[in-house]
Amino acid sequence: MPGDDLYPPFLKHRNISRIEGNVLYITDRRKLPFSHEEVACRSASEAASAIKDMVTQGGGPLEVALNALLLTYRNGDDVEEAVRVLAASRPTNTTMSRTLCGIMERYRSGEDMEELVAGTFSYYDRLYDAVSDTGSSLISDGDGILTRCFPEHTFLLSVYKAARDGRRAVVYVPETRPYLQGARLTEPSLRALGIECYLITDAMNAHLMAEGKVDKVMTAADLVLSDRTVVNKVGTLSDAVTARYYGIPYYAFCLSPDTSRTADDIVMEERDGEEVKRMMGVRTASDDAVALYPAFDMIRPELVSGIITREGVI
Amino acid sequence: MPGDDLYPPFLKHRNISRIEGNVLYITDRRKLPFSHEEVACRSASEAASAIKDMVTQGGGPLEVALNALLLTYRNGDDVEEAVRVLAASRPTNTTMSRTLCGIMERYRSGEDMEELVAGTFSYYDRLYDAVSDTGSSLISDGDGILTRCFPEHTFLLSVYKAARDGRRAVVYVPETRPYLQGARLTEPSLRALGIECYLITDAMNAHLMAEGKVDKVMTAADLVLSDRTVVNKVGTLSDAVTARYYGIPYYAFCLSPDTSRTADDIVMEERDGEEVKRMMGVRTASDDAVALYPAFDMIRPELVSGIITREGVI
Repeated sequence: MPGDDLYPPFLKHRNISRIEGNVLYITDRRKLPFSHEEVACRSASEAASAIKDMVTQGGGPLEVALNALLLTYRNGDDVEEAVRVLAASRPTNTTMSRTLCGIMERYRSGEDMEELVAGTFSYYDRLYDAVSDTGSSLISDGDGILTRCFPEHTFLLSVYKAARDGRRAVVYVPETRPYLQGARLTEPSLRALGIECYLITDAMNAHLMAEGKVDKVMTAADLVLSDRTVVNKVGTLSDAVTARYYGIPYYAFCLSPDTSRTADDIVMEERDGEEVKRMMGVRTASDDAVALYPAFDMIRPELVSGIITREGVI
Repeated sequence: MPGDDLYPPFLKHRNISRIEGNVLYITDRRKLPFSHEEVACRSASEAASAIKDMVTQGGGPLEVALNALLLTYRNGDDVEEAVRVLAASRPTNTTMSRTLCGIMERYRSGEDMEELVAGTFSYYDRLYDAVSDTGSSLISDGDGILTRCFPEHTFLLSVYKAARDGRRAVVYVPETRPYLQGARLTEPSLRALGIECYLITDAMNAHLMAEGKVDKVMTAADLVLSDRTVVNKVGTLSDAVTARYYGIPYYAFCLSPDTSRTADDIVMEERDGEEVKRMMGVRTASDDAVALYPAFDMIRPELVSGIITREGVI
């Protein structure tokens, strides 16, 4: 049975979020791997605030939102309102909001909320398993793979399954400023899975490619549009453009393309530039400096070699 | 008269290094802009160790080495040995070692060491002035310019002179991990000169280019070979490659091309990966992580639109 057992520690469901009594505990990813702390939320709006504050990110908000919806239901609070505030907490990645809307539709037509949420968790476990089967099939023995940010279940399981089958890749992990998801989450997760990996700073992508160390670029995607436009952590566009120059393919993992939107009507989240002037609470620039923090890159289809889905590479 | 008066605070000679009595004080750039601390050196080998430890970098080692040589001479110590240890302290940037060798040649043929060192300082002041006249001429009003690391006198004076002449540029400054020279040195220096500038993380280069915000990429160069190959801070290759994709010119400033070397026989400094796992003394990754720190990129001539020299753009 695929799922939780295979996941590295930071991705086990209970280590992303968990309900105990009437409290939702969210693991504070900003503190990993140095300490395991949880943020306690008693309502969907508290959970939405935690998501906005980057307590969890990537695929984390989806699981948090499922648990927050369940808690709201168990408390007899307004589930419609819960879905509204949760969906608004991450405007760019629309997987969470589309998933919540799908649940609500079935809930309104009489299905049981407990079963809907449990079924959604196991749906994603099966989806991660299927998508990573596709991802694994792209990896050859000895591949050097550049990734970006925290590419979570699909990428991590892909390199894990490939290694299990005798095709061992080496992964290069940009630290991913300002929140250091690469340094703090991806690198330890790969190491926990027994994968050889090297931490680099964010602008070493072209350097490694020029040295011939990178055979593939593979990242998660916060959003994939039906025309194969990929939206992912800022820096991914730099990876895709440099990969194109060096003749290296760029692949993005996709859980579910968003067929309802085009590049013109998605919301590209701009976060507060002040976040760029700190690192784990330590000041890295003058207080008077003005910093920019566009959180996401949009990678046009001409730079994307393939989208890795449960149905194969498209 | 060009020179010290025009320089932003961090580049004034006395703020790079100074001799007082028989001690050479080097400003610790690792602490700027948060505190102004100096490292005291009593010999050329202590100065060489400080350079290796990144107490100063970029053009700093040149000025430190000149003062260290002068101090060695004044103390009656072995100047030949001083030049040897200083030249070995930064293997990639050869300007310092070539300058020291030139001084020694003239010293051996009877010239006065005090005058030789003073003359070299003013030679570089005039050179910075002339090169920045060329750089300034490339800047148009409203230009968005992406730089990298701390591009020092030539770039800073170029944007300053252009602005003085009514052609105001906006500069985007990558923070430049792991030492944050962009965040700590470049951004405050541009602000001190009255230039509009924005701090970004290291992999936002393509993002800004895709948005149409970047008209030129301009960096310093630790080394320029006679075939126009540029060596500069890691990340510069990513800038040059992404600029090429978006049709944006890449220019490097050059004080003196190294005509004695080709791309095959220069030493590309590999620093300790442990430096990537810290930021200003704070741990950013697991102790068990393995990090890479190739310090420099080599940018091949086909990616270089022009070398900015005292004689013009070549």
